[in-house]
Amino acid sequence: MPTPIENSPLYRICNPRSVAVFGASNRFSAMGSAQLTALLSLGYEGAVYPVHPSETTVQGLRAYRDVRDLPEVPDLALIILPTRVVPEVLEACGQKGIRHAIVVSGGFREVRTEEGTALQTALLETTRRHGIRFIGPNCIGVVNPHLRFNTTIFEYGCDPGFIGIGSQSGSFVTQMFDYLGRFGLGFSAGISVGNEADIDIVDCLEYLGECPHTRVIALYIEGIRRGREFIETARSVARHKPIVAYYVGGSEAGKKAGLSHTGAMAGPDRLYDGVFRQAGILRAGSIEELFDFCWALGSCPRPRGNGVVIQTHSGGPGAAAADACGRAGLSLPALSPATLERLAPHVPGTGSVGNPVDLTFTKNPMDYFVTIPEILLDEPEADALLTYFLVPSRMVKRALESMGVPPDQVDHQTDQLMAEQAGAIASLRDRCGKPLLGFSFRTREDRFIRALQDRGIPVLPSPERGARAVAALVRYARFADKLTPA
Amino acid sequence: MPTPIENSPLYRICNPRSVAVFGASNRFSAMGSAQLTALLSLGYEGAVYPVHPSETTVQGLRAYRDVRDLPEVPDLALIILPTRVVPEVLEACGQKGIRHAIVVSGGFREVRTEEGTALQTALLETTRRHGIRFIGPNCIGVVNPHLRFNTTIFEYGCDPGFIGIGSQSGSFVTQMFDYLGRFGLGFSAGISVGNEADIDIVDCLEYLGECPHTRVIALYIEGIRRGREFIETARSVARHKPIVAYYVGGSEAGKKAGLSHTGAMAGPDRLYDGVFRQAGILRAGSIEELFDFCWALGSCPRPRGNGVVIQTHSGGPGAAAADACGRAGLSLPALSPATLERLAPHVPGTGSVGNPVDLTFTKNPMDYFVTIPEILLDEPEADALLTYFLVPSRMVKRALESMGVPPDQVDHQTDQLMAEQAGAIASLRDRCGKPLLGFSFRTREDRFIRALQDRGIPVLPSPERGARAVAALVRYARFADKLTPA
Repeated sequence: MPTPIENSPLYRICNPRSVAVFGASNRFSAMGSAQLTALLSLGYEGAVYPVHPSETTVQGLRAYRDVRDLPEVPDLALIILPTRVVPEVLEACGQKGIRHAIVVSGGFREVRTEEGTALQTALLETTRRHGIRFIGPNCIGVVNPHLRFNTTIFEYGCDPGFIGIGSQSGSFVTQMFDYLGRFGLGFSAGISVGNEADIDIVDCLEYLGECPHTRVIALYIEGIRRGREFIETARSVARHKPIVAYYVGGSEAGKKAGLSHTGAMAGPDRLYDGVFRQAGILRAGSIEELFDFCWALGSCPRPRGNGVVIQTHSGGPGAAAADACGRAGLSLPALSPATLERLAPHVPGTGSVGNPVDLTFTKNPMDYFVTIPEILLDEPEADALLTYFLVPSRMVKRALESMGVPPDQVDHQTDQLMAEQAGAIASLRDRCGKPLLGFSFRTREDRFIRALQDRGIPVLPSPERGARAVAALVRYARFADKLTPA
Repeated sequence: MPTPIENSPLYRICNPRSVAVFGASNRFSAMGSAQLTALLSLGYEGAVYPVHPSETTVQGLRAYRDVRDLPEVPDLALIILPTRVVPEVLEACGQKGIRHAIVVSGGFREVRTEEGTALQTALLETTRRHGIRFIGPNCIGVVNPHLRFNTTIFEYGCDPGFIGIGSQSGSFVTQMFDYLGRFGLGFSAGISVGNEADIDIVDCLEYLGECPHTRVIALYIEGIRRGREFIETARSVARHKPIVAYYVGGSEAGKKAGLSHTGAMAGPDRLYDGVFRQAGILRAGSIEELFDFCWALGSCPRPRGNGVVIQTHSGGPGAAAADACGRAGLSLPALSPATLERLAPHVPGTGSVGNPVDLTFTKNPMDYFVTIPEILLDEPEADALLTYFLVPSRMVKRALESMGVPPDQVDHQTDQLMAEQAGAIASLRDRCGKPLLGFSFRTREDRFIRALQDRGIPVLPSPERGARAVAALVRYARFADKLTPA
């Protein structure tokens, strides 16, 4: 029985109505100042109270000398202060009645000195005494774009999205803002857990599992502290929401690096592979794969099997996708006689109706975008369609120009054409109930790729990444079948 | 003993002084027209002669009814015509004295019909009789950006570069124009070999091996026809120029797809791995890896061993790079006492001087970009340095603004700062003689990343890709040591 999201200690941390900020000033170079700037720039509408020993206003906001002077008890304390003063500030927060905190400051257990360890102990003693739940220390905060709330030092520049991340690295939250934006994606919530002195990755799983904006959960893991709870929680969440994990502690080098980063204990790949399998979690082999998988899983229905049809009008990318599908454990079924018969009128003499279906070219572009995919998706052996998108919109633009479309209308007509074709593909996807993914070497800067992505069609940046994203869908469908109680 | 480049049949195909174009018209939708447009748009300065049965001018150029009417014997015939007429057009070209051709038309052996095979036989008979050397059929032509010569249907939008590619897929030439441009890279030459009825991938190796603009050779391979010659040529070229191959015929699905694409016979991965190893060729696992490896190999000196030092100010990306280095067979040596001593004043209390060297932050940014890398490169156990670049130039810009730099000078001062720091790193690289690579989630749109890339520092888009690029350098250095005669 899932618990209501409001019971999660992360609920008020990710959805605060008011925040006290410690460590922000009018000096730009201070990290706390950058965090306040980022917080204000996204347009957070809750109350923000800078606490500062000497300034009366900070970045235009009224500042308070002591947290105990605040006119209300804020939902959250955001602490970016030198390590040594953190416990006493949390003591003051506790006295005020604050029950949730983000401790950004580092210098605790992860530095592996006596002083660091002692300070982490003091921190825990204080917070436990006051019943304060917190993330960190040594973290970079949270982002909840749906609430326009961002405590990290980086500006959140993309739209709210459907990927929720729990991460043992702040960078793998903040550095993904721009990265995801390049694919038209964004976070539903991002949580940097740091040293996990209190709230940990298991709490993230519980929270994100219930978060209504989160369609898929990404995890960055250097080591898991509560193994049993991790597996149990993940199994329960993965029944209804896919989870993808990027784990870097598996090699000796990765293990050592993780230890000095967050103090997490890593284990060999084999062990973690077993944990992820038991937990119903897909493992990603790289940061790119983590979000490729999330993109596909958050956008596509579950395939019924592992049969993929590849559609291309270019042999090389088709062959590369076929090879990558083969390596990823997908099958490329031969098309049935009925499909071949329907396809025949649309395939030129230079084309091939094997799988990949290589059209080389199509006289009527709508064939490539609607008629042919529709025939291929009707194929009973096809559980998913992977399509190569080649023609750049600047060629369409040039074609329109050469057809005599007046210069002032070319841009508009190009957009319209792109939108029509992307819309046709999206409605086909909605009708057929099978995953439909694309791959292309063009990026979102191309209007057509953008139009497809904005309609929820994942267009991955290479044949290999497209193939592996389809394979992730197949793997999750198998997991989910096993996890769902009969 | 290498043969002079002028002896290569590809020399006049890639460097023609004049071209006859068959199949271009004033009708934009014809493929031949697009090829002529692309050819003219890049600014090729040789003579271009459209041959057309009825038009008197084509795209503003004087057109000729018959190739035999041309005022000179052009160096090259570019043929984009229906399959059936290709042999007779080549007959006319032969009569005129033309000795080099690009046959773009498809519909020959690759369609596996009696007619297609017969037409390919006729094509070969005609060209042999006249001593015509050609690439294709079923190819997309060549691009030589240094001569502003591009016969493909796609506009070459990036600068001339140092990567020469021989490809059994046209798309893996043309679709890489924009792709490479996104990293500040470009081709020195691109050759799409199609069905390889005459000139094949071995000829590409010979030509690119001698091409003075080509620092590294990329191959896209679906199957090799002349195995022995391939190995011998590659071994000889790889002594002085790295070769990277992307092979997609290794899985059953890839093999089938390649067969219907160019008719090439693929073999299992194991066999091809052996061929590549014997030939001194690095194998890339994806199209992205192909160019990542080429980037590193074309930009960096050979490392003396496999010891890598990772520099970061962010734990997660550092740990991910360490893990990926470990998986790629690289070692992460501990820093020597002398290095640690020199490093100490620059590392804050929250940092770590393990490997990765995680600075968490640096008070003086120049430390991160000059002082610290210099110390790390002096470390005797460091054969290469892999640095994470985080801080986006828009944060620098904001910092300058907050420091009171007048708004009209902020952009200029940001550029100047970025250029200075990138320049300092580049001169450090020049002094030390060791590979220095970066990785970042920021792209070339960030001024700083652009400044680094423009100074020849590869900045790969993820920790995994950075680590594997370093590993490619190490592998090539080992190959080259073995290949070089003692």
